[in-house]
Amino acid sequence: MRVMKHPAMHEISIEQVFYALSDPVRLEIVQKLCRTEEASCNALDGGRPKSSVSHHFRVLREAGLVWTRNEGVSHMNALRRRELDERFPGLLTVVEAAIFARAGANAA
Amino acid sequence: MRVMKHPAMHEISIEQVFYALSDPVRLEIVQKLCRTEEASCNALDGGRPKSSVSHHFRVLREAGLVWTRNEGVSHMNALRRRELDERFPGLLTVVEAAIFARAGANAA
Repeated sequence: MRVMKHPAMHEISIEQVFYALSDPVRLEIVQKLCRTEEASCNALDGGRPKSSVSHHFRVLREAGLVWTRNEGVSHMNALRRRELDERFPGLLTVVEAAIFARAGANAA
Repeated sequence: MRVMKHPAMHEISIEQVFYALSDPVRLEIVQKLCRTEEASCNALDGGRPKSSVSHHFRVLREAGLVWTRNEGVSHMNALRRRELDERFPGLLTVVEAAIFARAGANAA
């Protein structure tokens, strides 16, 4: 199984982070990761085909938002919360609030 | 002179806002608008040709970030700060901090 590449925090830009968050599928993945320590791709993909979501996971990884590790045949994903909080203080908190407000609005 | 269209705040999505912020030219415009009440396109375009920046102003308007009004032959632009703060509490504050941190890093 190939090893995933993850950027160092100083390598990521705020533009990249915003771009990664500009898609509803990726926002849904981030929203789920906000509520859990770690989750498999299967638990996060909303039943979408692997071919369609693997791109989104890559964008999230390359933007520094998500860390993916291999566990057996699964990929386990986690938000890089501590590092993101250091690099862009407060960002993840407001992003979470906005995502959950959005989810509430969509459900209403 | 044509009248600019602006979405109502309930019409904009957080994805759109993040997309609008995912480009360095648009971030630069937002950064300048953070420091001023209102500014003309000329004062914000960083000397870029009108053909290139008018697209960026449109993206910012359509995402609900910027309000543009005609004043004589100029377009005057302002952040929709109060409305954005109501719709996505805290977002603009963190965005500003991230943009200015980024500007500092770029200048260093």
